[in-house]
Amino acid sequence: MTKTRPGNFFEDFRVGQTLVHAPARTITVGDVAVYTALFGPRFAIHSSDPFAQSVGLPRAPVDSMLAFHMVFGRTVADVSLNAIANLGYAGGRFGVPIYPGDTITADSNVIGLKPNKDGKTGVVYVRSTGLNQRGETVLDYCRWVMVRKRDIDAPNPEIVVPELPASVPVAELHCPFAVTRGHYDVARAGSECLWDDYTPGERIDHVDGMTIEDAEHMLAARLYQNTAKVHFNLHVEREGRFGKRIVYGGHVISLARALSYNGLGNALLVAAIHGGRHSAPCFGGDTVYAWSEVLAKDALPGRDDVGALRIRTVATKDRACADFPGHDAGAPLDPAIVLDFDYSVLIPRRI
Amino acid sequence: MTKTRPGNFFEDFRVGQTLVHAPARTITVGDVAVYTALFGPRFAIHSSDPFAQSVGLPRAPVDSMLAFHMVFGRTVADVSLNAIANLGYAGGRFGVPIYPGDTITADSNVIGLKPNKDGKTGVVYVRSTGLNQRGETVLDYCRWVMVRKRDIDAPNPEIVVPELPASVPVAELHCPFAVTRGHYDVARAGSECLWDDYTPGERIDHVDGMTIEDAEHMLAARLYQNTAKVHFNLHVEREGRFGKRIVYGGHVISLARALSYNGLGNALLVAAIHGGRHSAPCFGGDTVYAWSEVLAKDALPGRDDVGALRIRTVATKDRACADFPGHDAGAPLDPAIVLDFDYSVLIPRRI
Amino acid sequence: MTKTRPGNFFEDFRVGQTLVHAPARTITVGDVAVYTALFGPRFAIHSSDPFAQSVGLPRAPVDSMLAFHMVFGRTVADVSLNAIANLGYAGGRFGVPIYPGDTITADSNVIGLKPNKDGKTGVVYVRSTGLNQRGETVLDYCRWVMVRKRDIDAPNPEIVVPELPASVPVAELHCPFAVTRGHYDVARAGSECLWDDYTPGERIDHVDGMTIEDAEHMLAARLYQNTAKVHFNLHVEREGRFGKRIVYGGHVISLARALSYNGLGNALLVAAIHGGRHSAPCFGGDTVYAWSEVLAKDALPGRDDVGALRIRTVATKDRACADFPGHDAGAPLDPAIVLDFDYSVLIPRRI
Repeated sequence: MTKTRPGNFFEDFRVGQTLVHAPARTITVGDVAVYTALFGPRFAIHSSDPFAQSVGLPRAPVDSMLAFHMVFGRTVADVSLNAIANLGYAGGRFGVPIYPGDTITADSNVIGLKPNKDGKTGVVYVRSTGLNQRGETVLDYCRWVMVRKRDIDAPNPEIVVPELPASVPVAELHCPFAVTRGHYDVARAGSECLWDDYTPGERIDHVDGMTIEDAEHMLAARLYQNTAKVHFNLHVEREGRFGKRIVYGGHVISLARALSYNGLGNALLVAAIHGGRHSAPCFGGDTVYAWSEVLAKDALPGRDDVGALRIRTVATKDRACADFPGHDAGAPLDPAIVLDFDYSVLIPRRI
Repeated sequence: MTKTRPGNFFEDFRVGQTLVHAPARTITVGDVAVYTALFGPRFAIHSSDPFAQSVGLPRAPVDSMLAFHMVFGRTVADVSLNAIANLGYAGGRFGVPIYPGDTITADSNVIGLKPNKDGKTGVVYVRSTGLNQRGETVLDYCRWVMVRKRDIDAPNPEIVVPELPASVPVAELHCPFAVTRGHYDVARAGSECLWDDYTPGERIDHVDGMTIEDAEHMLAARLYQNTAKVHFNLHVEREGRFGKRIVYGGHVISLARALSYNGLGNALLVAAIHGGRHSAPCFGGDTVYAWSEVLAKDALPGRDDVGALRIRTVATKDRACADFPGHDAGAPLDPAIVLDFDYSVLIPRRI
Repeated sequence: MTKTRPGNFFEDFRVGQTLVHAPARTITVGDVAVYTALFGPRFAIHSSDPFAQSVGLPRAPVDSMLAFHMVFGRTVADVSLNAIANLGYAGGRFGVPIYPGDTITADSNVIGLKPNKDGKTGVVYVRSTGLNQRGETVLDYCRWVMVRKRDIDAPNPEIVVPELPASVPVAELHCPFAVTRGHYDVARAGSECLWDDYTPGERIDHVDGMTIEDAEHMLAARLYQNTAKVHFNLHVEREGRFGKRIVYGGHVISLARALSYNGLGNALLVAAIHGGRHSAPCFGGDTVYAWSEVLAKDALPGRDDVGALRIRTVATKDRACADFPGHDAGAPLDPAIVLDFDYSVLIPRRI
């Protein structure tokens, strides 16, 4: 019986297989505090119990991206320990919020497999689902990664490429909070701009830059129990392709989301992740900036108190975003871009 | 409608104006743990619920300086985002303690404005107040900062320089705890020295030095949701005056307060901040030392169980304090001094 | 009255003396989160309240090694502030688990004294005990340290060298959890290997390496309120023997324990520490690896649901452990070895 788990290689996956991830994770106000110290988020719904109660929630829910990382972290040991690259996300839907004290479990279903022509790797498609202790879905999303084969002579599976949604339909967006007239405090939210004030095509520079220290991204990834080796082992990475540890891509997402408060201060929760690309790696010492474009303004069926904005947030390293790098789809990719993230946020309407 | 908030410039302030800061902040045992990891405070009242109960409190209150930073952090985006320098503090009074689970809000009143002769900047005086969820004051204090003008041609306001107290009167010191004979455990407090044992003029070297890492001061400032740019952005600061990120001045206050346990072990709470000066900036890699002088020994009206000590704590960088640098008021300022802090602590009396 | 506490020197200790350590410490979910962020432990019993409940506990207990460090941290100011070297541990027994909200106090009894021939130092033997707020023992262990004399002319005490157990007897191992047939979820534990699957003599490489940052080991030591100067003061250590801060030895123990999850995933709790040696110091930038050997497989009296494994875990720096460095007792000590730790873990049996 092998005691250590080497992680799954490409030939270990089967379409239809369910991967049961370990361990479950009780999320606490301690995790929230560490997350706050790492990213400095200021969205009022996560920062204050009374504010959360003013929009009908029992208390402050955990930041949407902390929820994402906690689910994602569980999947790493089974899905991507032998991955070369995280290729993409699709169809990410946030369900009921996570509250401190909740315990999440995560499972993944293998929904596609595609051997690469090099014979050494293949693409694995999974749908990962995070549930709370009552079995309610807190998040599900598709991810595809390029995974090494253990044995290059292992027979290749039949090609199954799943149909992935280009976006989560508006009808599937779940909004757990509600705003009643006169009860939404824009002053304490920190922004007067509501759903009504945004226009598709509008671009917002989030102005500030945040430098990443190696200690910080390692603290974050360990908090999520994400065990991907490249983030932690300088002894090996010093001899690797970049000569240093690689920052967990999700760290950049959280930085960009926290920076986006300056311009999207009422974007209280993330409802969906439509897609995302980590165009280049980040390292300790890099400074991350971000800008956003409003891709669409979606009314929610049956709701006049809250709407959704579909947002594209681009993050860069060591380059300010006043000129919106990467906005011109025809231009060559700006090498300073490290993230291109397509998601929907929930934001109160003017009532 | 401008989506990003550039912070207030000098010409945006009006005497009498109230700034409503965002977001509110629920403070938890998670915040306390991160604060403990950052500074290593050992004052028994914060470290142990049963100890706090032994002096009549419901449970361990949050460290006085964590309370200060949480209130201060809220004010930055409105008061000092465009500040060049934090010039001083006065009249700081701690009210009811913050307990984990409490939510604080903060507002500031503009109490003075003084344009500088250079025409590019001015001094803004504010009184900031932190309240808990029951509307009780946890802290209020005056601060004045030098703030840039957006437009150097903007007309200057009338000069209003508020009268600031040289110190908080003893009658205004609030002591939320009480000591009963035979119930104060000096062994578990870690010091046998009580109020009776200190003498005005006495100097105490706190002996130890603590090195600051960049990751640490950034974790701290983000925990407080303090968004001052100079602490976080190496990409910009590398080209700046110092070539590196500047440590939040309050970080040095917290280090000095934690170091002062060795010599002031029973100084359970801070009751007042009379004044403070950050004489020089600190940077990642600096090692902070501190010494204190007892400026005054104040009996509290109607109380024979607890007294106040007015303390001056001087912190240095990369210089031990066995010879009390800065004690000689006539000598030139020692360039190693980074903080000169004048405050009152509450300390049990021998009963 | 001396206000600062210089710590005890060799001549200050007396056999039979009790040292009452300060302060007491309420341990919270915040401390657990910071610990998780620092080490990334994945043992299911600490990670999930429902998992802990599935083995009969009220909720997730605090990690065994966090419990150890919290007790140890309290002792430093009285036992080892003037220590030159931490020489060894023996007879460490874990009692009732610590749960978030518990408050621990720690005392130490001086059980031995042995002056060294150099006349400048001596060995101090203590038994330290940590109790919770109900007076139940959470941990007790012996430790011996080499301590400086304040005055080399101070008379030497009579030599008392205590008899220290080579190991904690199996009958003294305390197992606070219980497994009932069909209720132990190996999938959510993350390993299918139970007590039955291990064989004395078996060696396990824990594969992964974890790099230590200076910010991290300082955050950890301050969390435990461990005040040993060598971990914190670069200004002094830069001129010292190594030219840099020394990582708290317990930090390496926690890293090794967290890494050991990969191979010992069901080793839910530590029951005993038989001995341990920090063979070489670690510094910021070092990458720690670990491997383990099963020294013995012990049935617990009256229990068929859980057994003990006596484990030797060896940790190295900047050297992978696939070839089990240090396994050959006759060979010269590998200079990459930083820890040799002898302890017992509790692990469910196949029922």
